[in-house]
Amino acid sequence: MAKEKKSQNAEKAEAGGLAAQLRVPSGPVDLSKYDTRATTGFDGSKKDGKLALEALGAEISDWQEKLFAEGRKDGQRSILLVLQGMDTSGKGGVIRHGAGLMDPQGLKITSFKAPTPAEKRRGFLWRIKQALPDPGLIGIFDRSHYEDVLIARVRNLVTPNVWNRRYEQINDFEAELDANGVTLLKCYLHISADEQRERLQARLDDPTKHWKYNPGDVDERKLWPDYMEAYHAALERCNSAEAPWYVIPSDRKWYRNWAVTTILLETLKSLDPQWPQADYDVAVEKKRLAAT
Amino acid sequence: MAKEKKSQNAEKAEAGGLAAQLRVPSGPVDLSKYDTRATTGFDGSKKDGKLALEALGAEISDWQEKLFAEGRKDGQRSILLVLQGMDTSGKGGVIRHGAGLMDPQGLKITSFKAPTPAEKRRGFLWRIKQALPDPGLIGIFDRSHYEDVLIARVRNLVTPNVWNRRYEQINDFEAELDANGVTLLKCYLHISADEQRERLQARLDDPTKHWKYNPGDVDERKLWPDYMEAYHAALERCNSAEAPWYVIPSDRKWYRNWAVTTILLETLKSLDPQWPQADYDVAVEKKRLAAT
Repeated sequence: MAKEKKSQNAEKAEAGGLAAQLRVPSGPVDLSKYDTRATTGFDGSKKDGKLALEALGAEISDWQEKLFAEGRKDGQRSILLVLQGMDTSGKGGVIRHGAGLMDPQGLKITSFKAPTPAEKRRGFLWRIKQALPDPGLIGIFDRSHYEDVLIARVRNLVTPNVWNRRYEQINDFEAELDANGVTLLKCYLHISADEQRERLQARLDDPTKHWKYNPGDVDERKLWPDYMEAYHAALERCNSAEAPWYVIPSDRKWYRNWAVTTILLETLKSLDPQWPQADYDVAVEKKRLAAT
Repeated sequence: MAKEKKSQNAEKAEAGGLAAQLRVPSGPVDLSKYDTRATTGFDGSKKDGKLALEALGAEISDWQEKLFAEGRKDGQRSILLVLQGMDTSGKGGVIRHGAGLMDPQGLKITSFKAPTPAEKRRGFLWRIKQALPDPGLIGIFDRSHYEDVLIARVRNLVTPNVWNRRYEQINDFEAELDANGVTLLKCYLHISADEQRERLQARLDDPTKHWKYNPGDVDERKLWPDYMEAYHAALERCNSAEAPWYVIPSDRKWYRNWAVTTILLETLKSLDPQWPQADYDVAVEKKRLAAT
C-alpha cells in the first residue's frame, strides 16, 4: 500500500472522518461481522439524525456548486457514487433524501436494470461507461457493473470463467476512472435478512407500495447466502485505495441516508474545488455592460 | 379552437388555476405589454413566496411519485417542462429551487448548448428527441429546440427559409409528443433589460459568480430587440392547446420559482396519475414471503 499512487480517496481516508470509519479494510470480508443496526459516528436519536441530514443541505450544495463551476471551465473532475445492496436496502431512499438535498442540475443518476441483448453484446462495462458523469457532475449509480459479479454469478448468467475474469476487469476500469479524474465512492447498503422481510411485508401491506414489489424479490431473497458470498468476493477483490468500498449499516434508514451523504460531503471537501478565476478582464466587461 | 382534440393542457386551462392566468392567448404576442415584475395569482411578500414554494414540496413530490410509479408499470405518460428566456432570466434557478423540491430520480434534466457539427447534421430536432423523458419522468429542458428559431434567427446561423420552416416543424413535433403521452409545458421567463443588466453586474461584482459570466452575454444583450421579435414569433406561431406557452414574470426570482412550480404541480394534478394495481396475487405473495 505504501508505494501506491496517492488518490484523493486515500488522502481522505487518512484525514479521518466518517469515511475512514466505514471503509472496508483490505483482505477477506465477512459481512456477518458488520452490525446492520450500527450508527457509527453518529450520536443521537432518529429525530436528531433526520435534522442532521437536513443540516448538511447548505454545505453540500455549496461544495457541489463549486465542483460544477470547475467543470464548466477547465476542470476534469467528477464524483461517482455507486450504490449497491439487496432489494429494499434503500438505494432509492439515499438518492431521494441525500442527493435530493443538492441541485439536480449537478447530478447524473442512472438506475441499471437487467442488460438488454444489445447491451450484453457490447460487454458488461459498455453501458456503464455511457453513464459516467461529465466533469463537474456527481454521478450516482443505483446498481452498477457490480451486478455483473453479483446476480450474474449467483444466477449463473455467465460461466464461472467469465465472472471470474470480471473482478480484474473492474479493477482496471476503476483505476482508469481514478486516473481520469473520476473519484469513486462505493457504498454497500447493509441490511439484515429480517429487516428485508419487514420491508417487503410493508410493500405488500400498503396498496400505494404494491408497485414497488415483484414476486421475483422473494426468489432472490431465497438466495441470500449466495448473494452474501458474492458480495464478500466483490468487496474483497475490488477494494483499492482508488476505488474504496464502504459498508453502510442500513437497517436504520435515517442513519443510512445521513452516513452516505456525509461520506459524499467528505469526498467533495477532499477534492476542494475552487471558484474558477475569470478568464476575461472584469474591469473591461463592467464598462462594456454599463454602456448597454 | 373549438373542434380541436382536447389535450390534458386544454382541460387544465379550462379548469382555471395559475396556468390559465399565465397562459399566452392565441394571436400576436407583444411582450412589452407583459409586466416583468407582476406577481399574478400570488398575494404576499417575498418571504411568503419562499415559504409558499417550500410548502409545495410534499404535494408535488407525492404526485411526482405517482407519475413515476405509473411509468414503472404500463404507463406511457410523462411531462416535459421547457424553460426559455434571456440570459440571467433564471432557468437554472427554477431547476435548483423548484425541481429541487422533487425526487431527482424522477427528473431528466437537459441543458442545451450550441449544437455540435454532428448534431447539426442530424437536423435540429434530433438531439431534442434524444433527451425526451421516458414514461413516468418529468423532463426539463434548459433551453430547447426554440433556440433554433431564436439565436439561429437573430444571428443568421441559417437562412430565413430554413428558420421559417422550423415553426411548422416544431408544431408537428410537439403535436406528436402530445399524442404520445408527453405533456408539454413551455415557460418563457420574462425579465426586463434593466433587470438583466443588474444581474450581469452582480455576476461581475462577485468573484464566486465570475464563472457564470462570459463576454458573449453582452454581445447578445445588445441584440435585445431582435430577440424580443424572435420570441414574439415563437410565442405566436408555436402556441397550441397541446403545447401551450406561459409567460412567467421573472424579475422577482421568488415569484418565478413559485409560479413555474405551481404550474408544474397543476399539470401533474391534471394528469391525475394513480398508484398502480398489483399485477400479482398479494395474498399468495404474503405467504411466500412469510415462508422465507
